[in-house]
Amino acid sequence: MLDHMGYECVIRGGRVVTDGAVIEADIAISEGRIAALGQGLRGAEEIAAGGLIVTPGGVDPHCHIEQMSGMGLMNADSFETATRSAAMGGTTSVISFAAQARGQRLAEALADYAARARRGAAVDHAFHILLSDPGVPDFEADLRALIAAGHRSVKIFTTYAIKLEDAAILEILRITAAAGAIACVHAENDAIIAAARARLLAEGRDRPRDHAASRPPEAEIEAVARICRLAENARAPVMIFHVSTAGALAEIAAARRRGAPVWAETCPHYLFQTAEVLDRPGMEGAKWMCSPPQRGLDDQRALWAGLAAGDLQIVSSDHAPYRADETGKFVHGPRPPFPAIANGMPGLEVRLPLMFEAMAAGGRLGLSAFARIVSAAPAEIFGLPRKGRILPGHDADLVLWDPARVHVYGADDLHDNVGYNPWEGHRVRGWPVMVLLRGAPVMREGSYLGTPGAGRWLHRAALGADPADLTGAAR
Amino acid sequence: MLDHMGYECVIRGGRVVTDGAVIEADIAISEGRIAALGQGLRGAEEIAAGGLIVTPGGVDPHCHIEQMSGMGLMNADSFETATRSAAMGGTTSVISFAAQARGQRLAEALADYAARARRGAAVDHAFHILLSDPGVPDFEADLRALIAAGHRSVKIFTTYAIKLEDAAILEILRITAAAGAIACVHAENDAIIAAARARLLAEGRDRPRDHAASRPPEAEIEAVARICRLAENARAPVMIFHVSTAGALAEIAAARRRGAPVWAETCPHYLFQTAEVLDRPGMEGAKWMCSPPQRGLDDQRALWAGLAAGDLQIVSSDHAPYRADETGKFVHGPRPPFPAIANGMPGLEVRLPLMFEAMAAGGRLGLSAFARIVSAAPAEIFGLPRKGRILPGHDADLVLWDPARVHVYGADDLHDNVGYNPWEGHRVRGWPVMVLLRGAPVMREGSYLGTPGAGRWLHRAALGADPADLTGAAR
Amino acid sequence: MLDHMGYECVIRGGRVVTDGAVIEADIAISEGRIAALGQGLRGAEEIAAGGLIVTPGGVDPHCHIEQMSGMGLMNADSFETATRSAAMGGTTSVISFAAQARGQRLAEALADYAARARRGAAVDHAFHILLSDPGVPDFEADLRALIAAGHRSVKIFTTYAIKLEDAAILEILRITAAAGAIACVHAENDAIIAAARARLLAEGRDRPRDHAASRPPEAEIEAVARICRLAENARAPVMIFHVSTAGALAEIAAARRRGAPVWAETCPHYLFQTAEVLDRPGMEGAKWMCSPPQRGLDDQRALWAGLAAGDLQIVSSDHAPYRADETGKFVHGPRPPFPAIANGMPGLEVRLPLMFEAMAAGGRLGLSAFARIVSAAPAEIFGLPRKGRILPGHDADLVLWDPARVHVYGADDLHDNVGYNPWEGHRVRGWPVMVLLRGAPVMREGSYLGTPGAGRWLHRAALGADPADLTGAAR
Amino acid sequence: MLDHMGYECVIRGGRVVTDGAVIEADIAISEGRIAALGQGLRGAEEIAAGGLIVTPGGVDPHCHIEQMSGMGLMNADSFETATRSAAMGGTTSVISFAAQARGQRLAEALADYAARARRGAAVDHAFHILLSDPGVPDFEADLRALIAAGHRSVKIFTTYAIKLEDAAILEILRITAAAGAIACVHAENDAIIAAARARLLAEGRDRPRDHAASRPPEAEIEAVARICRLAENARAPVMIFHVSTAGALAEIAAARRRGAPVWAETCPHYLFQTAEVLDRPGMEGAKWMCSPPQRGLDDQRALWAGLAAGDLQIVSSDHAPYRADETGKFVHGPRPPFPAIANGMPGLEVRLPLMFEAMAAGGRLGLSAFARIVSAAPAEIFGLPRKGRILPGHDADLVLWDPARVHVYGADDLHDNVGYNPWEGHRVRGWPVMVLLRGAPVMREGSYLGTPGAGRWLHRAALGADPADLTGAAR
Repeated sequence: MLDHMGYECVIRGGRVVTDGAVIEADIAISEGRIAALGQGLRGAEEIAAGGLIVTPGGVDPHCHIEQMSGMGLMNADSFETATRSAAMGGTTSVISFAAQARGQRLAEALADYAARARRGAAVDHAFHILLSDPGVPDFEADLRALIAAGHRSVKIFTTYAIKLEDAAILEILRITAAAGAIACVHAENDAIIAAARARLLAEGRDRPRDHAASRPPEAEIEAVARICRLAENARAPVMIFHVSTAGALAEIAAARRRGAPVWAETCPHYLFQTAEVLDRPGMEGAKWMCSPPQRGLDDQRALWAGLAAGDLQIVSSDHAPYRADETGKFVHGPRPPFPAIANGMPGLEVRLPLMFEAMAAGGRLGLSAFARIVSAAPAEIFGLPRKGRILPGHDADLVLWDPARVHVYGADDLHDNVGYNPWEGHRVRGWPVMVLLRGAPVMREGSYLGTPGAGRWLHRAALGADPADLTGAAR
Repeated sequence: MLDHMGYECVIRGGRVVTDGAVIEADIAISEGRIAALGQGLRGAEEIAAGGLIVTPGGVDPHCHIEQMSGMGLMNADSFETATRSAAMGGTTSVISFAAQARGQRLAEALADYAARARRGAAVDHAFHILLSDPGVPDFEADLRALIAAGHRSVKIFTTYAIKLEDAAILEILRITAAAGAIACVHAENDAIIAAARARLLAEGRDRPRDHAASRPPEAEIEAVARICRLAENARAPVMIFHVSTAGALAEIAAARRRGAPVWAETCPHYLFQTAEVLDRPGMEGAKWMCSPPQRGLDDQRALWAGLAAGDLQIVSSDHAPYRADETGKFVHGPRPPFPAIANGMPGLEVRLPLMFEAMAAGGRLGLSAFARIVSAAPAEIFGLPRKGRILPGHDADLVLWDPARVHVYGADDLHDNVGYNPWEGHRVRGWPVMVLLRGAPVMREGSYLGTPGAGRWLHRAALGADPADLTGAAR
Repeated sequence: MLDHMGYECVIRGGRVVTDGAVIEADIAISEGRIAALGQGLRGAEEIAAGGLIVTPGGVDPHCHIEQMSGMGLMNADSFETATRSAAMGGTTSVISFAAQARGQRLAEALADYAARARRGAAVDHAFHILLSDPGVPDFEADLRALIAAGHRSVKIFTTYAIKLEDAAILEILRITAAAGAIACVHAENDAIIAAARARLLAEGRDRPRDHAASRPPEAEIEAVARICRLAENARAPVMIFHVSTAGALAEIAAARRRGAPVWAETCPHYLFQTAEVLDRPGMEGAKWMCSPPQRGLDDQRALWAGLAAGDLQIVSSDHAPYRADETGKFVHGPRPPFPAIANGMPGLEVRLPLMFEAMAAGGRLGLSAFARIVSAAPAEIFGLPRKGRILPGHDADLVLWDPARVHVYGADDLHDNVGYNPWEGHRVRGWPVMVLLRGAPVMREGSYLGTPGAGRWLHRAALGADPADLTGAAR
Repeated sequence: MLDHMGYECVIRGGRVVTDGAVIEADIAISEGRIAALGQGLRGAEEIAAGGLIVTPGGVDPHCHIEQMSGMGLMNADSFETATRSAAMGGTTSVISFAAQARGQRLAEALADYAARARRGAAVDHAFHILLSDPGVPDFEADLRALIAAGHRSVKIFTTYAIKLEDAAILEILRITAAAGAIACVHAENDAIIAAARARLLAEGRDRPRDHAASRPPEAEIEAVARICRLAENARAPVMIFHVSTAGALAEIAAARRRGAPVWAETCPHYLFQTAEVLDRPGMEGAKWMCSPPQRGLDDQRALWAGLAAGDLQIVSSDHAPYRADETGKFVHGPRPPFPAIANGMPGLEVRLPLMFEAMAAGGRLGLSAFARIVSAAPAEIFGLPRKGRILPGHDADLVLWDPARVHVYGADDLHDNVGYNPWEGHRVRGWPVMVLLRGAPVMREGSYLGTPGAGRWLHRAALGADPADLTGAAR
């Protein structure tokens, strides 16, 4: 490997960011992996990174791709378009959902999504098995088999039509804990939301802006507290998705201090937006509708404090792409009441630049925390030992950033299939100039170099018996 | 650097533990630093590490060396003996105290300690400036000058004869915050202790076992809560030393969630011992006397949870060496009342093995958390950017562990000058077989290879304006 | 009224305990009510109370009388026997349950229970409408009509076959809040219990002692936290029944500090017993089985602190009478697994003496807190403005206590129809020597003087719009 | 006593408010005490109270009368003017301070204040012994003697020139706990205030509006938390005076839940005003300056919730009268920097009307909570068993309110000697039309009928051994 020319490729002279530190080092790559990290390394090919910052490729563990929504609406992105968008924004691994339809065997659902990803995905990928119907035959055996086959995470809901009741949740947690998987949860209290929605509609309040009031903070707080107790009872690792309120965060912090095996993520739209985005003329607000909704400034502050304190470990995108037209947000007409509007925003491409801006340029928590939060922690918690860090033996998934370059997001500069950019006008300093997936460039200076189907499925080994495996790693 | 023979030295084939991960990699060393981390590295010299675990050398930020106690008693270890003991136990950097005597100019105190360390220290070292008399002339100017000169931490007390009142503490915090230093605090409420002690002595309860009751939990809890408020008020980074109670930990966790710039450590004797160690026949308990005292099992559990949650970042030794004879513990006679017995235990040499046993063999939190807690976090929080991690550019301070080797501590197997071992009989699995300081072995297979005076003083640059510099790094 | 002979009856010379104070005063009674409170009052009849303590008659807002259990088992007490037992122990008002059967109209259920109470009750009484089937026709209209007709409280469950899901609970809370009723809740998470029970039975652990493990603390904590959030969301007054754990109490205290309209009770068996009572030879433990189960000493301590701090307002009996024979506890055979054993214990008769002993003789909180907790607070919270206090205009429901008399409970000294006494051997100091209901003695020196059918139904007016009506009164 | 004409005097037909309830009853008075409470009572004299509300006379346990301030400035009210003002506003008992001068024996201080009160006081009165110098000879013996002689409360400060350090506080708490007294504490951290003040003055911020910033919330929070810990450690009953922040209240609530013997009060200016009152043109703001300063709306909300939850038991006036002229606020010139302006506002006369308006007319907590908070609780906590309630045997201290009468405070309508009214323009509904002290009118329809010297000193017996004596009573 170390012949006279040194390594296949060396990224020379950059400031390299790992989970714990920022160092001056060259990165040597061989056969798609990082072969060495050091000073004065030489390679057959060399990429000059002087003045640049090199971070691990993003790991986005929460995105919806080619998935049918609860409304029966296919979302706007195929694996081809979604992973193109991811790559352009510096994300080289995604975990999307293999959604079980009612009555469907789990293996069948997975096979279907896997086939589509194999054809279309330009970055590496894995699946959370979305469990909507634990009543199908052989459910437990199938789930255990899939976890054993490398799918160590599931997704469940406490709201929407696919919501599960506590008994089903506990039963699933029993299985996932025993089989070594982590359960991701969309935790909002369905009854509180239904009652609030009914009240609003009865009062004629059916505009996008009313969406926020229809999902009050206590809906999230209650469900998060409940899931924490169930996880504690079942000793089952749980990931709380998209925490949006200070109150829910406080429940998570308390549960973690009790020793409950609970982890949590938030998303850029909760860190940088408030519910005011919904309050735009006409139906414009629909473009920003997501669930849970954006909240207030106090919640934003609490979420940042939660990232600093380690109560939140991950920032994901919750990429949920719907066009703002009759194929997406407005499939039920041009002025539907808010419950008929598809929820979700694109986010795969903006997640890293938004967080880089805030954490590096903006100074919040700093560069090594950035690398941990968008790459190392999701890789570790979700079982991707070769992703998320710049260390020998890890995949050479890398992002080269020009820390001085400024970009103001425009309406059309995302590479997904959504057709609008909810971050239009947002200014970031620090911009990715090159992205490598297993050593091969998938983006260079704004040009997309990825290949549909080149992304690999990532086998994720089951957790050992002790959920504390996770604790030390990602806290 | 990379000639045909490769590097000066390569540690080959070990499992390398960094803050965030455990990888299989070779470590190349040149000129005392880590030159590269990678696979298949070659060196002029090679050290076979197959089957071994390689961790960063320990950084012990809390130890008393050649220091006069409050009783006017010189402690038992010189820099020569203390750093020998440190090296034998895998610790390659220590921060001890440069203690200002009443009326003494700070620079003078520092010069004295520095001279002694220069002569005797076999490992790298730095000083916390122990402030006992802020009333000396030019105090502020001197303190600012010393911080600017590379000493970015101070130590203050809220108890003992050298205790400072709130006004003095706030004034010092104003200076340290402005000058870019962190203030370490021994936080126990002096009045509560004095009242408890008086009550006990009045009741004739003057045995070592009564030491615990003389420093009740609320003495620590109150003072820790107060220091957190003062730090918050002054926006001044503070490190709470030797947290021993669940209650004090809860105050720290709450303060951190409010955004207060507060960090905290605990010590092995609080994690593995309870107040029962004081309850031995005759004066035996005196050997385990330290302040704050060991507590109960509930406190132990809380401290471990605090390490897992990140509310505690560091485990230090609080090495405070006194012989159990008339030169130390019993300087005031063979059966003195407890207030006349010197407080403290040796700990420099045992800290790493005890924690390795618990975290690696015992499975608590895991190896990478071990490396963070004993090495990376103290290096980062106290300003040692080249220490505490195994990454290119860092000093080649390394410990090679045989994870299978079992050791039961004996009475005489420590290499300090204390003459007893409070951990006698404690069994650990995992044992250091080699320790390197800047690439040079200081211990190999139980033989001490260090050289008095070979340790270097570590310049520690002042913190930038934002205490959040610390936040991202060490949380 | 005030003729030359003064009042109809005067209780002369006792120490009179009201909610707020203990005074030396005579109590004048006319037409069943307290006509005056003062010194030197004269009556046609006089009862000498020198040396005695006079407290308000007990108000027991939580007892099961002539009610079918979830197992379809009629409990052991008729209104005749239950109210006899109540009167003998100093309780002059009871609120039992009018339990809706599945499919049954509410008015029908109520009419049935009311008729039986009218015939049998020897003390005054009211009903909580137990809602098991909100799906019956005209449910909302019927419930509103009943509340308007004087029944201002309902009871719901989150566990057992009659458990309601969140959506149904929220719908009921919407109705009760609007109509001016308070909802009492048995709050334990059914799924956690079901899972724990299944696990225990699978391990062959089916003895009475295993009952405690089948209802772990987090089952109560979770459900209590959830009900608090639902109450807060619906702005609906809620009473948490039989709080047994420190954790649930902490949730209630936090909710009250957020302003949630939440009140809570505990019971003597949680204050004075631990789960050890279940751990007796053979099937003996079955006699102490109740739900939630008795807990530990830490929980006891927390419950007492909760009474002191006002987080708990009421101590009720949760009288749930089943004979320890084939008609009751052992209806499913002599050695059934614990889930087949009827839950519940007699308590109507012992509640006051147990609490008097602890609070007066034992000194916990004192006499006026005793009167508040067993009489004034339940009267106020549940809408009985003429009960629970010794003030002019109030019903002359009184208990005369000999504070020096000691009683050790025997196996046969209760006057219900249960046939065993779970407090056998328990010693109390302070014993009721006379009990008056609306001025007429129902017990004198251990002789029962009550009359089946003499008890009156108590109309309870709906709450005003503001749940804070309750706040000032009973905190 | 009960001759053919009945009682000496009967207040007929009012709605009578006691701690726990509101009843329709006549109140019979004989020899200055309440002889009976009942219906149809007859008296030689009768006062028609139909349509009126009768509450207990106010007990104001926190007011400064004829007291020298820390600045050496005598405050504006003599006992004659202060108690006139109190009586006009419905307050019939006051506890002011007997302030020890430096070096002065306690008995001497007390004798001096007692003599002046004996001459001037028109309402009943007692003293908190203000301890400023525990170093005088025989301090402990004198203090014990005074407590035994009927003075069961002391006052200490953690700020101002008379501040005591923790050791002195603990020593005093040891004495008060043993002797059966309660210690009232002005708890603000002196060092935090001094540092903030110095910073402000250095920036040229010396206006009344800057007073608020000079006493930041954490100054109060820290000191309150500390006092709670000291009280817990010493098992000594403590009353936290004038709580102004949500944060301090949270510390008190937590301490009470730990079982600490801690009680707390707030004042109308914290419940109804914010720091904006200081922000007026010129020096106007000086009229509203008090310590701690008014805070924000969030704090107001928290304080009301604290009253509802029982964490705060008392609302007192903290009457601290200084004229807004060169004899008072501006003794150091017409435009002094804020530290040179005397702190304090008049409040004795407005406390009851302000609270009646909020609690009765405004609906917060209700009438019986009003009576508890302004009368019953202070009487009970401070040892006045014949004050604060309308019950037989209690002193006939009564206020008759016209609930419909509206009053808008004017500049000149207070009867103290302060010369301005900080509540000018404040509108209240509900107005006292008559005030009786021990049966004799001291105010009728706005006319003052009191007599200087007619007020009696109130002997207050020492507490028993158990601070829980207080717990049940006043929670």
